[in-house]
Amino acid sequence: MRVLGIDPGIAIMGYGIIDYKSNKFTVIDYGAVTTKAGIDKALRLHDIYNGIISLIKSYSPDVVAIEELFYNKNAKTVITIGESRGVSILAAVNSGIKVFEYTPLQVKQAVVGYGRADKYQVQQMVKVLLNLEEIPKPDDVADALAVAICHCHSNNMIEKLGYSR
Amino acid sequence: MRVLGIDPGIAIMGYGIIDYKSNKFTVIDYGAVTTKAGIDKALRLHDIYNGIISLIKSYSPDVVAIEELFYNKNAKTVITIGESRGVSILAAVNSGIKVFEYTPLQVKQAVVGYGRADKYQVQQMVKVLLNLEEIPKPDDVADALAVAICHCHSNNMIEKLGYSR
Repeated sequence: MRVLGIDPGIAIMGYGIIDYKSNKFTVIDYGAVTTKAGIDKALRLHDIYNGIISLIKSYSPDVVAIEELFYNKNAKTVITIGESRGVSILAAVNSGIKVFEYTPLQVKQAVVGYGRADKYQVQQMVKVLLNLEEIPKPDDVADALAVAICHCHSNNMIEKLGYSR
Repeated sequence: MRVLGIDPGIAIMGYGIIDYKSNKFTVIDYGAVTTKAGIDKALRLHDIYNGIISLIKSYSPDVVAIEELFYNKNAKTVITIGESRGVSILAAVNSGIKVFEYTPLQVKQAVVGYGRADKYQVQQMVKVLLNLEEIPKPDDVADALAVAICHCHSNNMIEKLGYSR
């Protein structure tokens, strides 16, 4: 199974593509789509959308995993992240790919093993699980890989338990 | 000038298309794109996006006007509206159409003449300005027409004052 993990944002959208087979991870690619601060928001959303469309075309993931929004106290930030989440989800569905959403709690539980793990612990586990030489930067990239790992672990559990999604 | 006004939402997206020439409005069409509550959110966003794409194809508006988010206290609602706003803006930019955003205050000032107008006053003015027999329902439709009117009035003022956008 190939998973494209996404950490949505308007300035930086982190992504990570991993393969998961027989409980083993292989990293295919990771990085960030960035948009310029000075340009129109509509064009930035357009760049995010096109960025995901081309990642999907290049790597043909089976599913897209995306982190549910952190409930930031700044309403303006929440809206902007919501907008970039919207176009990210749309890019997947317009490419015929199913989207799975995970809360930060689910990601931590699936990656580190418990929901109260801190950011650094999550990043360390991403590095270890994916056999990387260092923690990917910026944080958005590590977060995108974490949600991709989360989907693999969750999906694995679901298959073992015989649930269907 | 032909304006497509949009009131974004995941369940109901209100729209209104109006022409504005020599300070006169002509209503072209208005209504709502609705999505079913039971289906996947990704598919609902897809329906909203496609709904706007087909409105643009059918009516060829010059611009899209969209209301900036009301800062609802429910964070979940804010995010969902953000997501549907994101795909709405994207539908316009993917169709090569410029998007203008207006705050609720700007809409009230442009439609009723003062920013503290209540919902009913705005709806009454929409009815009067557009020469409609009754207030369009649901509220999302009247709101979409209001933001379209707001763009016409604001744009008119900008032209008179010689500002460029």
